[in-house]
Amino acid sequence: MTNDAFTGSDEARSSKPLRYVQTVTFDGPLALESGGTLPNVTVAYETYGRLTPEKDNAVLLCHALTGDSHVAAHDESDEPGWWDISRMVGPGRYVDTEAYFVICPNVLGGCRGTTGPDTTNPATGKPYGQDFPPITIGDMVEVQHRLVEHLGIETLLAVIGGSMGGHMALCWGVKYPKQVRGVVALATSPRLSSQSLAFDIVGRNAIRQDPNFHGGQYYDAETAPDTGLAIARMLGHITYLSPMAMSEKFESTRDQPHDVQTPFEKEFSVGSYLAYKGQQFTERFDANSYLALSMAMDQFDLGQSVEDLAGSFHASAGRWLVTSFTSDWLFPSFQSKQIVRALLRNHQPVSYCDIQSDFGHDAFLLADDAATYGELVRAFLQNCLGRPEDTSVEEVNEDHSPTSIFHHSRRLDYEQILELIPAGASVLDLGCGTGGLLARLRQRGHDDLHGLEIDQKNILACVQRGLDVVHRDLNKGLKWFSDKQFDVVVLSRTLQAVYDVEFVMDELLRVGRTCIVSVPNFGYYKLQEMLQQQGRAPEAGLLRFKWYDTPNIRVLTLRDFEDFCRQKKVAIDRMVALDTEAETEVPPENNPNRNADMAIYVIHR
Amino acid sequence: MTNDAFTGSDEARSSKPLRYVQTVTFDGPLALESGGTLPNVTVAYETYGRLTPEKDNAVLLCHALTGDSHVAAHDESDEPGWWDISRMVGPGRYVDTEAYFVICPNVLGGCRGTTGPDTTNPATGKPYGQDFPPITIGDMVEVQHRLVEHLGIETLLAVIGGSMGGHMALCWGVKYPKQVRGVVALATSPRLSSQSLAFDIVGRNAIRQDPNFHGGQYYDAETAPDTGLAIARMLGHITYLSPMAMSEKFESTRDQPHDVQTPFEKEFSVGSYLAYKGQQFTERFDANSYLALSMAMDQFDLGQSVEDLAGSFHASAGRWLVTSFTSDWLFPSFQSKQIVRALLRNHQPVSYCDIQSDFGHDAFLLADDAATYGELVRAFLQNCLGRPEDTSVEEVNEDHSPTSIFHHSRRLDYEQILELIPAGASVLDLGCGTGGLLARLRQRGHDDLHGLEIDQKNILACVQRGLDVVHRDLNKGLKWFSDKQFDVVVLSRTLQAVYDVEFVMDELLRVGRTCIVSVPNFGYYKLQEMLQQQGRAPEAGLLRFKWYDTPNIRVLTLRDFEDFCRQKKVAIDRMVALDTEAETEVPPENNPNRNADMAIYVIHR
Repeated sequence: MTNDAFTGSDEARSSKPLRYVQTVTFDGPLALESGGTLPNVTVAYETYGRLTPEKDNAVLLCHALTGDSHVAAHDESDEPGWWDISRMVGPGRYVDTEAYFVICPNVLGGCRGTTGPDTTNPATGKPYGQDFPPITIGDMVEVQHRLVEHLGIETLLAVIGGSMGGHMALCWGVKYPKQVRGVVALATSPRLSSQSLAFDIVGRNAIRQDPNFHGGQYYDAETAPDTGLAIARMLGHITYLSPMAMSEKFESTRDQPHDVQTPFEKEFSVGSYLAYKGQQFTERFDANSYLALSMAMDQFDLGQSVEDLAGSFHASAGRWLVTSFTSDWLFPSFQSKQIVRALLRNHQPVSYCDIQSDFGHDAFLLADDAATYGELVRAFLQNCLGRPEDTSVEEVNEDHSPTSIFHHSRRLDYEQILELIPAGASVLDLGCGTGGLLARLRQRGHDDLHGLEIDQKNILACVQRGLDVVHRDLNKGLKWFSDKQFDVVVLSRTLQAVYDVEFVMDELLRVGRTCIVSVPNFGYYKLQEMLQQQGRAPEAGLLRFKWYDTPNIRVLTLRDFEDFCRQKKVAIDRMVALDTEAETEVPPENNPNRNADMAIYVIHR
Repeated sequence: MTNDAFTGSDEARSSKPLRYVQTVTFDGPLALESGGTLPNVTVAYETYGRLTPEKDNAVLLCHALTGDSHVAAHDESDEPGWWDISRMVGPGRYVDTEAYFVICPNVLGGCRGTTGPDTTNPATGKPYGQDFPPITIGDMVEVQHRLVEHLGIETLLAVIGGSMGGHMALCWGVKYPKQVRGVVALATSPRLSSQSLAFDIVGRNAIRQDPNFHGGQYYDAETAPDTGLAIARMLGHITYLSPMAMSEKFESTRDQPHDVQTPFEKEFSVGSYLAYKGQQFTERFDANSYLALSMAMDQFDLGQSVEDLAGSFHASAGRWLVTSFTSDWLFPSFQSKQIVRALLRNHQPVSYCDIQSDFGHDAFLLADDAATYGELVRAFLQNCLGRPEDTSVEEVNEDHSPTSIFHHSRRLDYEQILELIPAGASVLDLGCGTGGLLARLRQRGHDDLHGLEIDQKNILACVQRGLDVVHRDLNKGLKWFSDKQFDVVVLSRTLQAVYDVEFVMDELLRVGRTCIVSVPNFGYYKLQEMLQQQGRAPEAGLLRFKWYDTPNIRVLTLRDFEDFCRQKKVAIDRMVALDTEAETEVPPENNPNRNADMAIYVIHR
């Protein structure tokens, strides 16, 4: 992020006329979810790239609260669009307009060309103002759907949206489940948190209580409720930034405000920033639009419980990509996780990444994390086309699996595990790494495959392979999954790095009808000899790590594991002991507890 | 917390006259830090309990932004005070008015009896309004100091404050370092974060832009800037609650707002709450006071860096108690930690606890966490008197030391470590538990003793013993301490539970001139035999834990540790090997690596 306090995610947005905007007006009334109607709705939109003759490459972009149709500049002389900072849309970019036909409409209720409160009400000849009927996210999507039909497109390759745009993307998945092949929901939620609602409420109160609001009919007046709108916007800006980002932006220059012309306080650098941003906003946005859109966002509600959400998403036939940002407190990660849980409950294909970011809610608009969210979107669109970027089945990078304790590759382990998984079984791979095992299973024809992984880079690698993987720390358990949801749950070479073994094992056995667990054996004779002969704990040479830096914090022998199973009433259906160094199986009669360095157990409860 | 959406930390505050309030007016002008002056300042205050003839039991309480002198009810018929919800002040309570003489003044600039913007300006015969000169936290403390002098008190036993009241408590420690024996700073900061500043700025803009503000001279007008003040208060309320607390309060009744009479929006339950709280506030608070006090708070600045802070606190001769609350995002924990780091840098006696709480900034006013912060205050006041509640030297509860791997008590270990610590040495005990070792050292006459501990209950136990302990995860390192700050740093039976051993050892050796580290020996012959003869990893019987539930995640022998020291260029000055079961020392010639179950190393770098 730049150090100039006056730049931000909205920097590129201007109030200038949009040169490439197109409009279409739908004759006849639009029935609204509130029961009201709107006659002759007009939609302003921009398009990028070309629609294929098969009309199978259309991507709909949904903007956030104060965005518009201008997502990207159309050429070098054009004004920058709202997603140009992160180079999101354009030829060769993450949403590659050489491959996709991108449509970005201004939303219903907006003030940049699409019908909204500042549009003339045919019944009165004056702007609607507060006579503009209450609208919902569903109404916005309905208008987008008409636009898509108007463009002759039956099925969208994907709908992409962040924040309020994410609400629209989710709504597409619910309202038109068969007409969307992929839904991308960035930094969004099934409904706003109480805290986020509260900020919107204060902002709306500031606008409505502005004496220049005149009950919403201020269009003919000399003054608009700019003070209230500016205050709402100041508040908005605070919520878009993380505390860390604000600190980074303003702490060092705390008492050196910029000298802005403003009726607002400018005591601190953050004060002059807010004053500037607030005022600037009144030049490009209509207060009535702000009220209508923020209320639509606040009333968007797919349900509080995962059960409700799962019901909403049930009919979706598409794939899903959900991302949140760790420092986003306006749309906090746990809300994205609710969406993911609902989809998982339905066995729907979803990938999820909680992107490590310091930039708060704005992160999804900024360049800093685009290498993650942008690349995820790029890979996901390829997957929606059925053409993953990476079609290999090898583990991409062994270093991404820090819990592999032995120097040798995972190959022998994988081959054995593959043999143990019945054809066509649904599989959950815990700590799936870059997806080597899942890719092999897909190659073998398995359908219902999910991965769980903690490393952001590995998640991207999985999505690039066309796999569905969710971002999750195994130590937090598997509550995202229901009882016996999978034929097979795999925990390969990971148990020894788990802190709460009992909890994780219980979860494993709850979710899988059968579980396959591979464990290292610290009873292996070479490790024992090291201790006896050298008086040293097992370490380098044989193992990849030393006692003080190994991620493998659980020391157990095969006998320990078997005893654990007995105590916990876990049935061992099969056991394959391996000497991975020699690349051979150790038969039961050959004392695996001394002669195998690892073993694979098939267990169930 | 109760489920009624309309209760909160400010519930008990009313606009009714205060029956027990006293006032004193100081003749002559008060010189303000801004350069201005105020003639004839009046202070409104309440007192509880009795001053001893020695005048050594006076405790000054400093209220937060919108508090007043009425901290507690004086009798059953009296209105409840602002700290009565948590039963903080009164006979037998945490601040026991049977033992202490409690003084609670309304702050300078307030609107509940002490001189403020609504006071008549003798120069004009009208209320000051915006002619009230800018005031600072230092000015407020100056007025409190005059009051304390007026009451004939030379030295305060303690100053206690939370939030803005915490700023005053810190300021007392800086301005009158010799006149305060103890400073209690709850949920406060050396200066506001940029995010917290930003909320205040938006609130002040809402007040100043209210057309009824009339440049601050609204006292004669029919209307006051109540809309702006209510909006500022709504915003404040959001910041006082944690997201979790808001969710708990409002999620289940999201669409069922209370039917309050209000000009404000009441679409959602949280909306009706904010409308109610905002309006209620205008009945008891003056907008000009809000502006003056919030600006004083925002301009309070003891420095951004720990170095600056350490300089500010340098002259303090008192003890310090600092507490933050994990879900407080208005005065986030890291800011309290800065205070603590500065005091530690000065070798000043400080205890710190980051209280696990879901209740946000309000937590310091609410009952839910009072069993922690109240008890800490109670114990701390006893310590300021020099009469700790608990004078024993035994480990209070062995179970609070989950990393003790052996069944046997710590006694032998402690005795050996005590012998190895030179008389009078300054000591930092890492993972100090309930303070058994430090208590023994204090008994032996050591002065400069500090503990570091991760368990909240243990911290309370230490403070009850009169020890200074700070709340900190050892795995995060010792950056709170400077190079060679202590003669001796002790790490007793904890290394094996540390995740990043290299980092923690580096830190240990940086901060201690000498370090004493006791480590368990997994080369101990009984553990080896278990592995050889039974093929089992060392576990129960001998050890307290099993492989799957032990907090001891590092497996090492004495030889491993010695080799580690060699590699890392750490000098081993002495080694004492122990058989703790037999309660004997294992001499070097008797193969400690097989025959000792633990060893104590004296090392340095």
